[in-house]
Amino acid sequence: MTPPMRGFPDEEFQRRTRSAQHMMENAGLAALLLTTEPEVRYYTGFLTRFWESPTRPWFVVVPLSGDPIAVIPSIGAHLMGQTWVRDIRTWAAPDYDDDGVGLLAETLCACVPDGGRIGLADQMESHARMPLAHLRDLTSRLAKRQIVGDATITRRLRMIKSAAEIDKIRFAADIAGRAFDRVPEIAMPGTSLSQVFRSFQMVCLEEGADWVPYLAGAAEQGGYADVISPASDAPLAAGDVLMLDTGLVWDGYFCDYDRNFSIATPSNDVRSAHARLVEATQAALDMAKPGVLISDLFHAMDAIVNPERTAMDAGRLGHGLGLQLTEWPSIIPTDHTVLEPGMVLTLEPSVQVREGKIMVHEENIVIQAEGAALLSPAQGPDIRVI
Amino acid sequence: MTPPMRGFPDEEFQRRTRSAQHMMENAGLAALLLTTEPEVRYYTGFLTRFWESPTRPWFVVVPLSGDPIAVIPSIGAHLMGQTWVRDIRTWAAPDYDDDGVGLLAETLCACVPDGGRIGLADQMESHARMPLAHLRDLTSRLAKRQIVGDATITRRLRMIKSAAEIDKIRFAADIAGRAFDRVPEIAMPGTSLSQVFRSFQMVCLEEGADWVPYLAGAAEQGGYADVISPASDAPLAAGDVLMLDTGLVWDGYFCDYDRNFSIATPSNDVRSAHARLVEATQAALDMAKPGVLISDLFHAMDAIVNPERTAMDAGRLGHGLGLQLTEWPSIIPTDHTVLEPGMVLTLEPSVQVREGKIMVHEENIVIQAEGAALLSPAQGPDIRVI
Repeated sequence: MTPPMRGFPDEEFQRRTRSAQHMMENAGLAALLLTTEPEVRYYTGFLTRFWESPTRPWFVVVPLSGDPIAVIPSIGAHLMGQTWVRDIRTWAAPDYDDDGVGLLAETLCACVPDGGRIGLADQMESHARMPLAHLRDLTSRLAKRQIVGDATITRRLRMIKSAAEIDKIRFAADIAGRAFDRVPEIAMPGTSLSQVFRSFQMVCLEEGADWVPYLAGAAEQGGYADVISPASDAPLAAGDVLMLDTGLVWDGYFCDYDRNFSIATPSNDVRSAHARLVEATQAALDMAKPGVLISDLFHAMDAIVNPERTAMDAGRLGHGLGLQLTEWPSIIPTDHTVLEPGMVLTLEPSVQVREGKIMVHEENIVIQAEGAALLSPAQGPDIRVI
Repeated sequence: MTPPMRGFPDEEFQRRTRSAQHMMENAGLAALLLTTEPEVRYYTGFLTRFWESPTRPWFVVVPLSGDPIAVIPSIGAHLMGQTWVRDIRTWAAPDYDDDGVGLLAETLCACVPDGGRIGLADQMESHARMPLAHLRDLTSRLAKRQIVGDATITRRLRMIKSAAEIDKIRFAADIAGRAFDRVPEIAMPGTSLSQVFRSFQMVCLEEGADWVPYLAGAAEQGGYADVISPASDAPLAAGDVLMLDTGLVWDGYFCDYDRNFSIATPSNDVRSAHARLVEATQAALDMAKPGVLISDLFHAMDAIVNPERTAMDAGRLGHGLGLQLTEWPSIIPTDHTVLEPGMVLTLEPSVQVREGKIMVHEENIVIQAEGAALLSPAQGPDIRVI
């Protein structure tokens, strides 16, 4: 597979910005205030791992008309200057007296008229990446302007991916697919799970990942107890089900799916649990198309993996995917989001093999005009055997 | 170097909790509310990469007496159950009707008397990792209890590391040291910088890193323009200065330092810039001991790397280090934090080689009773040559 172009043409960022501005007008917002990595990157293309450092806040203002304005620490000016953003205002952070709040207030006051409303994300899956004391200070400096919710504008825009975004996610998924195919090289009876984790990240990088922000997994007899634990030093043994679930990144876009492996011959329970999981993802894939509801996908999978309707700890059977490992929506019975072309989702059913032991299978799909297609290479019903 | 023990004895978490409770009493706080990964992990030991998913909020309440209470999505119950925390309250997240706010309010109301104050971090380097709308809802459900700042209690506690924490950081730094020594295996004229980044992460993993949350760097002729950019596909060429700056993790603790490499023979400017950087870190290391101020370290380095006192974009010459890539304090002229035994710092001077070209050098140190010691393997004044 030829790598997609890195980055995006400026037109894509312009389109995102104009779409947001249209929605802002409808929502009565005079500006959006962005504070988190995915929000800032979505409108600007600003891609850096420097967000790992919690020290400095970063702000972008999307006014009701015109292009985004970056209000950022000077250490980021050079990199922001490589994006399409032309209005870049900086301060030397960290500044214990005023860590950008004054500059941000000035910027907002100049774009937003008296009485105007500024949208800041405040719903699920969001947070304000700035100190609460600074947010209070900002609010008081805005005089008659008010900070309100962002009417989920950025979340809704991000939910529908462009062709270029989908290409990046598919490319990331393809890298992970090659890495999963190489697991037999790195995992064998006696190998510690922590060593498998380390080697698997190396294989992901070797196959082309830019970095590997997420890896979870487990290896236990006949299934596993949970799916978010770090690796232990326990050695793999015959009868273990090894699960690796990776969120690797290519050009800032994630894939997020897992594969299960039986160490030596699987038990009948494990074999049938795996087949049931694959049947469930296939059922959801088959029915997914524009107009279908997220809750329909839930019920299609749940009917197969959980026919007795017992309570589930995982809480959901998949989610959105893109700039982040997990994005809106969640595949739960109460989510009635209507599928649209361009949505990228994970299908992630889990099944209880026996008391205290579950198995999880995950695929990445894209909704298209006529149906849905896998982004992750297809997995058959037979569990992989090492 | 023998790996330290993974995790900590329960006594360490008890000590952290008791210290916080003592400070809470002095600050008039009836509880702490924790919402972010490092805060939750500091008091509980809850270590997972699952925080990469922004979907679910996680809460821990530290009451004025007794042990911490976890109020978390049920998907984390099994892993939290492996920690010393015994009181674990869960809900099936995501829940669009009430995503844990009701359970959290109930928990807080039971621990905090009417009129009591609940501390939530609100100062620099902090944020509330929960939706703002949920924070407003929580506030309204607390009746006569009030959410206020946390008096920087957790930040201050985290600043002084235990011997076990220091061992983990040293071990991480040692892994990075071996990886830096192997850079000549993976970087040669013609290798693209993006490939160097990929290979370097693999080498870090091979040398024992659990994962590599942070890697930045650059390779340009005679110095580089900034230090936070992702890698380009440009091939290394003679005359480039290659810089790699890694924050790798072992058992949840970071190292954070860089090394510079000249591709082929360095120019005299590059050679002397590197020697000056090493001289600056040495000057700070020599003077660092309990009682000295952070601002003293700044001035010691600044006098060497920036004798003409021009404005600097980097903003600071180092910072704290531990559970996060960067922690309190910042080595800036306005930070007058008094050094104490157990502080772990990076010394990170930068120098302008010529207009638009800088070089940065970084070391990790620990403050001890009688002085300070390097945690990163010492780097001599001569730049490494490939």
